[in-house]
Order: sequence, then C-alpha cells, then structure tokens
Amino acid sequence: MTVEKTALLYEGKAKLVYTTTDEDVVWIEYKNSATAFNGEKKADITGKGRLNNEITSLLFSMLHEAGVENHFLERKSETEQIVRKVDIIPLEVVVRNITAGSMAKRLGIEEGIPIQEPVVEFYYKDDSLGDPLITEDHIEILKLATPAEVDMLKHVARKVNAILSKFFASKDLRLVDFKLEFGKTNEGKIILADEVSPDTCRLWDIATNEKLDKDVFRRNLGSLTDAYEKILERIGGEQHV
Amino acid sequence: MTVEKTALLYEGKAKLVYTTTDEDVVWIEYKNSATAFNGEKKADITGKGRLNNEITSLLFSMLHEAGVENHFLERKSETEQIVRKVDIIPLEVVVRNITAGSMAKRLGIEEGIPIQEPVVEFYYKDDSLGDPLITEDHIEILKLATPAEVDMLKHVARKVNAILSKFFASKDLRLVDFKLEFGKTNEGKIILADEVSPDTCRLWDIATNEKLDKDVFRRNLGSLTDAYEKILERIGGEQHV
Ligand SMILES: Nc1ncnc2c1ncn2[C@@H]1O[C@H](COP(=O)(O)OP(=O)(O)O)[C@@H](O)[C@H]1O
Ligand SMILES: Nc1ncnc2c1ncn2[C@@H]1O[C@H](COP(=O)(O)OP(=O)(O)O)[C@@H](O)[C@H]1O
Ligand SMILES: [Mg+2]
Ligand SMILES: [Mg+2]
Repeated sequence: MTVEKTALLYEGKAKLVYTTTDEDVVWIEYKNSATAFNGEKKADITGKGRLNNEITSLLFSMLHEAGVENHFLERKSETEQIVRKVDIIPLEVVVRNITAGSMAKRLGIEEGIPIQEPVVEFYYKDDSLGDPLITEDHIEILKLATPAEVDMLKHVARKVNAILSKFFASKDLRLVDFKLEFGKTNEGKIILADEVSPDTCRLWDIATNEKLDKDVFRRNLGSLTDAYEKILERIGGEQHV
Repeated sequence: MTVEKTALLYEGKAKLVYTTTDEDVVWIEYKNSATAFNGEKKADITGKGRLNNEITSLLFSMLHEAGVENHFLERKSETEQIVRKVDIIPLEVVVRNITAGSMAKRLGIEEGIPIQEPVVEFYYKDDSLGDPLITEDHIEILKLATPAEVDMLKHVARKVNAILSKFFASKDLRLVDFKLEFGKTNEGKIILADEVSPDTCRLWDIATNEKLDKDVFRRNLGSLTDAYEKILERIGGEQHV
C-alpha cells in the first residue's frame, strides 16, 4: 500500500500515530518507551519499539487469518506499521485465564490460579481517572457502547482468547491475560485495533512460569528486551541476535 | 420476644453484635460512632445510635409489610434491636438512582444526574481491600454467591429500591442511592440483613436537594443528628426534640 505519513495525530505512551495521504489509514510508530502504574514508572528501552511492532504485526495477521477483523494493514519498517484508522472506544477489554495483576490485588487472591471460565472485564480508558474497572451498566451510563455492542465486544474478546491461547500454547507459552482495544471505522463498523504484544498480554513460559511480558519491567525481573525477543523467536519472527 | 443478650460476637464500625439465649437471634446495639473513607475519618456523635436504630427499625418493618423478607425482629431499647442471625454474604449491594459518591468519582461525571434505569453494583465487603467494586464474574471466582443467587440479590435489591423510593418520595425525600447487605439463615435462606439508615442511603430533600445523610459527616455540611432527626420525623418516628 503506498501511503505516506503526513502529520502527527497524537502521541500515546507507547506509540505515535500519524495521519497519512489516505484518510482511512493511520501510520503507527512504536516507541521505545516503557511505562507502568499509569505512567508513574518510565524508561527508554532500546529495541522495544521494534519488538512490539513485529510481534503485534505477526499476531494481528494471524488473527486476521483466523477470522478476527482488525485494523492491521502492513508493517512498514522495523518500528512502523500502517493500520485502518478508527475512532477508539475508550474501553480496555481485558480477558483473564489465570489470576494475576490488578485482579489478584483487587480480590486479595494469589496470582497463578486458573480461572474456570475465562472472564472479560471492562476498564474505562481514561488516564486521569486511572483506568478504573467499570460495569456494563457504567458503559451504558457513559454511552461508551450499547448493550448489543458490549455483547459483541465480549464475544470477540473470547474468540480472540481462544485463538491466542491455542496459538501461544503451541509455542510453549501460557496466555495469562491480555487487554484489547476496539474502534469504529468510518463506516461505523467495530473492529479490533491498537496492539497485541507483550506490553498488553501476560505470557508465562508453560514449563517454568517465567514471565515474558511487561511484568519484567513492572517488577524489575531482568531484561525486558530479552523477554520480548524470546516471544518473537517462539512465535516465528525474524531473529535479531 | 424474650431473649437475653449473652456475649459480644463482633464489633463493627457502627454496631455491636451480641449472641443471645436463642442461637438464631443476635442482639444489635447501634453505636454513636461515625466513620467514613474506610475508617480514615471518625467521630463520636451523641444520638446517632438511637437515630439509626429507630430509622432502620421503621424501614425494616415497612419492608417486611411490603413483602421483603429481612432479619428484623424487634426494637429493644433506644439503641438496641434483635434480629435473625445470619451469615453475612461479604457483598455490598448498591443501588443507584442518581449519580453520586464513588460512582460519580469513578466515572468522572457530575453528581445529581438521574440514571435512566436504576443500576445495581457489587462491592466486595473487605476493609483491608478497601471494599472494591467487583463484577459478577469476580463474585463467582471468590465463590461469594452463585450466579442464581446474584440474580436473586439484584432482583431483591431492585424491589427494595422501588419500595423505598416510593416511600421516601411520599416523605419529600429523594432516594439517591443505598447499600444493602444480605445473609444466609441457618436454613440456608438468603434474607436482607444489616441496616437501612441515613448511614447507608443517600437521601436528599426533594425540593432543595439538601443532603440528609452521612454525606453531612463525610463533607462537613453541618449537624449529622439534625439531618437524621429530620429523616426520622418525616418517616414518622417518635420525636426527640
Ligand atoms: N487504528 C487506530 N486508529 C486510531 N487510533 C488508534 C488505532 N489503534 C490504536 N490507536 C490509539 O493510538 C493511541 C496511541 O497508542 P498508545 O501509545 O498505546 O496510547 P496510550 O498511552 O493511550 O496507551 C491510543 O489512543 C490508541 O487507542
Ligand atoms: N442479622 C445479622 N446477623 C449477623 N451479623 C449481622 C447481621 N446484620 C448485620 N450483621 C453484621 O454485623 C456487623 C457489624 O455491623 P457494622 O458495625 O455496620 O459493621 P461494618 O464495620 O462491617 O460496617 C457487620 O459485619 C454486619 O455485616
Ligand atoms: Mg496503549
Ligand atoms: Mg456497616
């Protein structure tokens, strides 16, 4: 696809988003910055942008093959890709297979306990409010999505979970939980957007439970790029060693 | 009913609970202590115990008449009542008709906006966790109640809301929101328990929106007992002026 990047549309914590010569396409540049705890912890990690750009490109292509419509169009460089432009619905749709992170903390339970039926949670994507957990009623009050749309988001989130869990398991990785974002195209269709990467998934080695995701950064467990490099290798990306 | 109080079973922030000579009955003494923000703000307010004991006795009697099974048996003194002993389900079941309090803060919206369809929220009753909002899936994971029990709690909560809203409206009071607790009797039946008082309801004067509930204490809006006395007078209790 021959589009050119024109102007910076917005800068997030992990990515830069540019308009392009095609009004339905945005150009995304993955940054090297790592952030956690709502921006409280920050670092610049060489290689992170490249790794997430490659991993998310591979995963979105795979999801497309598996029938999950998403924004991904084409990887443009080590750290850049073009995607369909959407209006992001300000919801973080989280799917959990195993207790961890904020859910374990909220409920006062241990991490690592398998959850019988995967659960879907919604967080209101608003940094100033600290991305709070919200209920489906709250989504309606805030007019973020209709109840039918919420059902659809849950359905797609579960489908993505089934596909990714199986895929990662075949790579000796346990998909503990992950966060999705969805957006509306200019035709009003809701599709999967944003990214699916070790920044947005918890991935544990199936044998050792070694954490190979952003928790390495959050909890100072070693080299983040070593972990992400392992993910990329296992899921079959080009190697940069 | 001739039961006698025997030993202190537990002391909460607002009430003392005693065993009695009847193992299915507990004796509750309403304290004068007011607490807010998970116990961070505290005060001793003379008359508060008496007011909440009277108000909750009136409201539970009224709910009983209206067909809502609950723990209330008999008022025993100005500050004491006996109730059926239950195993409290550690859930705070909150019903909201108008935006206020923690919901308004969580969603970043103004207080005082009517909510089209009353919403029911669940909070995990655990002081050490700060009584977090939880989802129905979390309730299942924590095994606090089955999905069928959750449906029943929501149904009863909405029924209580309909009854109380109408009752308070007839007393020129707006029922903004309230919190219920439920418990299981020794026969395994779930009934409404704990209290329904200006400590657990937001009540605004229908004409002026004057707050006549615990927000008077939380936000230093004047005399708490003056506010609670107004509630008691309006709903038809004995007057103590
Ligand atoms: N296809 C898309 N079209 C438009 N915006 C997108 C698309 N995919 C993701 N975005 C948005 O790009 C922004 C930048 O991403 P990111 O740096 O991860 O932001 P954040 O700091 O909000 O996590 C986010 O607001 C994200 O929702
Ligand atoms: N019918 C009942 N049987 C047993 N316990 C009850 C009953 N009704 C209420 N309780 C419990 O009595 C305790 C004391 O009440 P309170 O002082 O309001 O406690 P808290 O500090 O938890 O709000 C609470 O744990 C409450 O759930
Ligand atoms: Mg992001
Ligand atoms: Mg209480």
